Amino acid sequence: MIVKKFFLAVIAVLICQLGFAQKLTSYVDPFIGTGAVDGTSLSGSNFPGATVPFGFVQVSPDTDNEIFSPASGYNYNDKTIVGFSHTHLSGTGVADLFDVLLMPASGNLKWSPGDENKPGSGYRSAFSHQQETARPGYYQVNLLDYNINAELTATEHAGFHRYTFNGDGPARIMVDLDHSLSKKRDYWVCRILGAEIRKVDDHTIEGYRIITGWARMRRVYFHAKFSKPITNHEMAWGTHNIINKPVINGTDIVRAAFNFDVKKGEQVLVKVGLSSVSVNNARENLNSEIKGWDFDAVVKRADALWEKELSNIRIDAADAVKKIFYTGLYHLYIQPNNTADVNGEYQGSDMEVKKSLTKKHYSTFSLWDTYRAAHPMYTLLKPSKDAEFINSLIKQYESYGYLPIWQLWNDENYCMIGNHSIPVIVDAVVKGIKGFNLEKAYEAVKNSSLTDHPGSPFKYLHQYGYFPEELESQSVSKGLEIAFNDWCVAQFAKKLGKNDDYNFFMKRASYIKNIYDSKTGFFRGKNKDGKWLEPFHPLQYGGNGGNPYTEGNAWQYLWYVPHDIPGMIDLFGGREKFIIKLDEFFTTAGGEDAKNENASGFIGQYAHGNEPSHHTAYLYNYAGQPWKTQQRVAEIMDKFYTTDAAGYSGNEDCGQMSAWYIFSAMGFYPVNPANGVYDIGSPRLNKATIDLENGKQFTVVAHNAGGKNIYVQSVSLNGVAYNKNYILHSDILKGGRLVFEMGPSPSYGWAKKAISYK
Amino acid sequence: MIVKKFFLAVIAVLICQLGFAQKLTSYVDPFIGTGAVDGTSLSGSNFPGATVPFGFVQVSPDTDNEIFSPASGYNYNDKTIVGFSHTHLSGTGVADLFDVLLMPASGNLKWSPGDENKPGSGYRSAFSHQQETARPGYYQVNLLDYNINAELTATEHAGFHRYTFNGDGPARIMVDLDHSLSKKRDYWVCRILGAEIRKVDDHTIEGYRIITGWARMRRVYFHAKFSKPITNHEMAWGTHNIINKPVINGTDIVRAAFNFDVKKGEQVLVKVGLSSVSVNNARENLNSEIKGWDFDAVVKRADALWEKELSNIRIDAADAVKKIFYTGLYHLYIQPNNTADVNGEYQGSDMEVKKSLTKKHYSTFSLWDTYRAAHPMYTLLKPSKDAEFINSLIKQYESYGYLPIWQLWNDENYCMIGNHSIPVIVDAVVKGIKGFNLEKAYEAVKNSSLTDHPGSPFKYLHQYGYFPEELESQSVSKGLEIAFNDWCVAQFAKKLGKNDDYNFFMKRASYIKNIYDSKTGFFRGKNKDGKWLEPFHPLQYGGNGGNPYTEGNAWQYLWYVPHDIPGMIDLFGGREKFIIKLDEFFTTAGGEDAKNENASGFIGQYAHGNEPSHHTAYLYNYAGQPWKTQQRVAEIMDKFYTTDAAGYSGNEDCGQMSAWYIFSAMGFYPVNPANGVYDIGSPRLNKATIDLENGKQFTVVAHNAGGKNIYVQSVSLNGVAYNKNYILHSDILKGGRLVFEMGPSPSYGWAKKAISYK
Repeated sequence: MIVKKFFLAVIAVLICQLGFAQKLTSYVDPFIGTGAVDGTSLSGSNFPGATVPFGFVQVSPDTDNEIFSPASGYNYNDKTIVGFSHTHLSGTGVADLFDVLLMPASGNLKWSPGDENKPGSGYRSAFSHQQETARPGYYQVNLLDYNINAELTATEHAGFHRYTFNGDGPARIMVDLDHSLSKKRDYWVCRILGAEIRKVDDHTIEGYRIITGWARMRRVYFHAKFSKPITNHEMAWGTHNIINKPVINGTDIVRAAFNFDVKKGEQVLVKVGLSSVSVNNARENLNSEIKGWDFDAVVKRADALWEKELSNIRIDAADAVKKIFYTGLYHLYIQPNNTADVNGEYQGSDMEVKKSLTKKHYSTFSLWDTYRAAHPMYTLLKPSKDAEFINSLIKQYESYGYLPIWQLWNDENYCMIGNHSIPVIVDAVVKGIKGFNLEKAYEAVKNSSLTDHPGSPFKYLHQYGYFPEELESQSVSKGLEIAFNDWCVAQFAKKLGKNDDYNFFMKRASYIKNIYDSKTGFFRGKNKDGKWLEPFHPLQYGGNGGNPYTEGNAWQYLWYVPHDIPGMIDLFGGREKFIIKLDEFFTTAGGEDAKNENASGFIGQYAHGNEPSHHTAYLYNYAGQPWKTQQRVAEIMDKFYTTDAAGYSGNEDCGQMSAWYIFSAMGFYPVNPANGVYDIGSPRLNKATIDLENGKQFTVVAHNAGGKNIYVQSVSLNGVAYNKNYILHSDILKGGRLVFEMGPSPSYGWAKKAISYK
Repeated sequence: MIVKKFFLAVIAVLICQLGFAQKLTSYVDPFIGTGAVDGTSLSGSNFPGATVPFGFVQVSPDTDNEIFSPASGYNYNDKTIVGFSHTHLSGTGVADLFDVLLMPASGNLKWSPGDENKPGSGYRSAFSHQQETARPGYYQVNLLDYNINAELTATEHAGFHRYTFNGDGPARIMVDLDHSLSKKRDYWVCRILGAEIRKVDDHTIEGYRIITGWARMRRVYFHAKFSKPITNHEMAWGTHNIINKPVINGTDIVRAAFNFDVKKGEQVLVKVGLSSVSVNNARENLNSEIKGWDFDAVVKRADALWEKELSNIRIDAADAVKKIFYTGLYHLYIQPNNTADVNGEYQGSDMEVKKSLTKKHYSTFSLWDTYRAAHPMYTLLKPSKDAEFINSLIKQYESYGYLPIWQLWNDENYCMIGNHSIPVIVDAVVKGIKGFNLEKAYEAVKNSSLTDHPGSPFKYLHQYGYFPEELESQSVSKGLEIAFNDWCVAQFAKKLGKNDDYNFFMKRASYIKNIYDSKTGFFRGKNKDGKWLEPFHPLQYGGNGGNPYTEGNAWQYLWYVPHDIPGMIDLFGGREKFIIKLDEFFTTAGGEDAKNENASGFIGQYAHGNEPSHHTAYLYNYAGQPWKTQQRVAEIMDKFYTTDAAGYSGNEDCGQMSAWYIFSAMGFYPVNPANGVYDIGSPRLNKATIDLENGKQFTVVAHNAGGKNIYVQSVSLNGVAYNKNYILHSDILKGGRLVFEMGPSPSYGWAKKAISYK
């Protein structure tokens, strides 16, 4: 037996070395998603900087101090960099964070810190993509104006900068605490309430800023060390400029410049610890994570952490697909971010200092996006972490009385609609994920569905059976999404044997019938007198208020009944009418003049650039035409995912856009992201092997996948012919092998037999 | 010897019981200073509510939710009360605080929390001064609309409310976290960043608000207990109204109404603990200070604390004078406030949680006002506490790099001008007060005088020898006041043997010569080319920017050389010219059309309603005409201090207006508030006995004082004829007896002999 085991081990090592010789991190290109295609879509809004998985600190170059479009701070099409700040959002539509900007410069520069027209301490530098590299945990750029090679890496709570001064001296490093969501951005009031920079000794600075922005109030403390002694320095608050004093304290424009004696080619390293609690914690974070000055060791550690995080799914596919796939996974693991310090403390939702015994408290939950596919992907690949996320969501419930809608820096910003912590939790419950308290979780989802709060005035639902648009705008989108939430609560109630609750929420979920207009065949806005709003134009878009539809139009919200697709088909008048409508959806042009800026990535009215459309290509499955699902899904992967900077067709949205691809490329997708069912589409990976957390392995093979072979010819599971049009999460958990035979034409044989989930 | 001692003790007790039978607190009328005379002056801006000396919580009725004029929240001329909030500023010109408003109501009321036009939860009630009482630590009012008798008392960190519901039920108590400096007040941006009210159990609520206002960011946590169970409740954030849910969390309009079953005449008591750190600390504060429900015991304790605080100075005088005097002392001890919780924690200047080992950390330092006479009064009556204040001031220096200018809630708001922590510290140093680190204190005053910061761009002083008005507005006032600060630093430097520093700061103090225009005989604004600003109108007022003078005119700032009055007399051309000018100051009418709203209490151009004039009546002493000082000082006491609600001629300014009277009524005043010298004026107390902290006693007697006997005829100290026009702090500390003989006409005999301080 021992000999046999040894033999197997040797084989395994050989397989690893041969089959997976190339590191998975090598397929990650952090530049994907950092630029827009052109004026017709949004950037993916990703950043190319350095971070470890789910890290608190994510240090990245910012190319624009004025408008922050994209919200990540970095636009691939920009020509200059204003500096490197330590916190970023990945893929969001709204900007915030950008804490503690550092910018190196050299030469005889005029220090004009108080000049608002000179952002980033006024030391913007040109850069070139030819002299710029990025990989997980590492970023490098040559700052052309100064001939400074800037390199960045990160640990969980600290950014590490290595600046090589190849130009003429003197060398200086600016610290800018004013750098933030611009005050010119008219839809949000951003103010620095207080800021401080202190020189502690020749090698050390620390300080903080208190900022109100998209997050209502953030306290950001930092502690930083330089590898060389500061020779002299200047600090400024606005026009108050002081030289060689230990501290500056003010609001808004608070900046400092530290000067160093360097020879040409010499390096200055800076390591910066952050905390939401105190300078002491920032110091502790830094000291425990970066002990010396070995920059390369920190890069290596970050890479190893990424490799480990990525490695429980290994794929065989074309290089471009691998690049999109693993970069997608990388984007999926950029957030949620662990906001707890190394000692477990963090700023809670009530702005008090809290302590986590597990040293974990996650934030940045873009739930309206991520409940769809990103969280289901966590349930598959990172179920323990999903439980930790849920515990963090419940913490906010304890503070607010309802679950997060869009949580940033442990605070609610009420962005978007619905209460999509609910499907996240119910999905985990349905999938049997352990690690959170079920009764508490039920209390949270129930109270989130009964306690009126912004975007959720349930009283109107109870009084009118729908949201009258004049009382609650975005009434159609909210009505539909809350109905799905209600269905989720009902399933959870049923599981716990709470039948009254089950009936109550199932009934309320059915209220969507009250906003379906069978005459036009659309879900439509009604006023409180029960009249349909006129005039009605199904191509007309709404934004985030003032219209029944949210960042979309009547076409895009027509399909939002993910929990009862057979019911929806009935409502629309049967399968044939449903298919006609779906075909029309994918082929109807127009509406561009009325469209919302979030809509892009069009196939007819389908808009892959924003989330409401994401499940719709899979709906053909339910009406007996799975080949159309396969064709549309393949088309979307082909058209809207590339390896370019403009690799996404809109905001990447904290992993959702990536998760759509990762699922679809494997061959299935959670149309209902809370029932443990994945609907089969058009796989394009030759093979994908998932090491499940339960120790089992699940492998998906797609013979002949790729190119024109987008159609499923037949399927087998563990060697047995499989004619379901879906696969259950519970079946995946058993481990096994799902094999697709792919071909260039629809296989009406398999497809006609294929059973849809009901 | 023992017999003799016993005999003396009996005598002492008898004296106490006979001569001082009436409690000192009975002379305090908290309504003094709560109203304005008419449209020509500001209110004293005091509040009538309940507090203990230097208490963190100061619970008081607010009469206006819209503009907060006066800044204390209470205007004696208003007809309605909107509720009772727990923190207030006493005597300031700018409003802030007003945390956690409670308002009882009864009857069948419509709950319309989201209506911004219904402030104080919309339950404003009429009240009448006939059914209102106030004394130290206790306030009572009948809310006429509801027939509710509301009573308030306080401990250091908690407010205690007793509401007697004499009207028809149901009874309710509203909690309003939106109540604050109105958003309509256009000169300050006030926003509630976050707020939460939570019902913990039938008797308990808690929550917080995070607010940015005059103080940049305050976190205010509360924990409250009701004596009766809540039967049901409603909570609202704006128009989101929820019933019987445990928590509401939002921004701006966050309110709740708690209902109680009460019979007619029944009481509901509420006790509310506050903290700047956490709900836990608020709970701990409350539990350690108010254990049961004995409201009267808390009232009694508060009264006893006040009696003790007031009792180290006992006076014999007309009742009205006693009332003004002890109410003045009461106002002097309303602040600075101990912001540390019972466990010593507080929100520090860097917004971090700090811990004080002494459980003391004071804030609310209106230094531009209080350095003049309020802090000198603390050095005389509460020297240990003065040292604690100084330690708190130095804490902010450690955070900012310079000392406080106007410190609120441990944060700097940069109100007014100069760096008047410096005289506060130097005064304590000169007077030998122990309890703070001298070297650290010196470092603080020196760095505050060398580090450029708002209002203090020393670089201009060094470059031009004055502040050019176009580079730094309010240039004349700043130049003069900083010159005094410089003189103070120089004295401290001398004491520590730092001769270079002494010379440097003495030289910079002399720069005021650069802004004296001998042609017009005024200190005047100059531009950077060295030209006097034209046109020049000595009656023209400046406000807080845009003019060389701060809240005053050239006349009022003519006298601001408190550290070198002989030099000033020389500058003006000698004693005779100085006196002519001073006479002119007290007799020149006009300028009303150009005046600043802070100027009031006029005698000619003298304006007692604001601080720049406060020392000027005493200047005649220095030019050989002390009888004119005596006459003007008496006139000011007569005209500008009454026992009415409009008892002050302008904002009381955190004790400064009161301290002026307390000193002047005793017979002396610190013209230079940092040299340990008090200049003799016109005593009006028959007798004042101070129990000094060193165990000695100092008594001032003024025979025949009062009425027309405003002139000093002769003086003796410890039975020896005294012909100095001043008395040294060091002489007072020796204990003794200063006796004035007063009469109705100037005594040219004594006056001609009287030696002024040089």
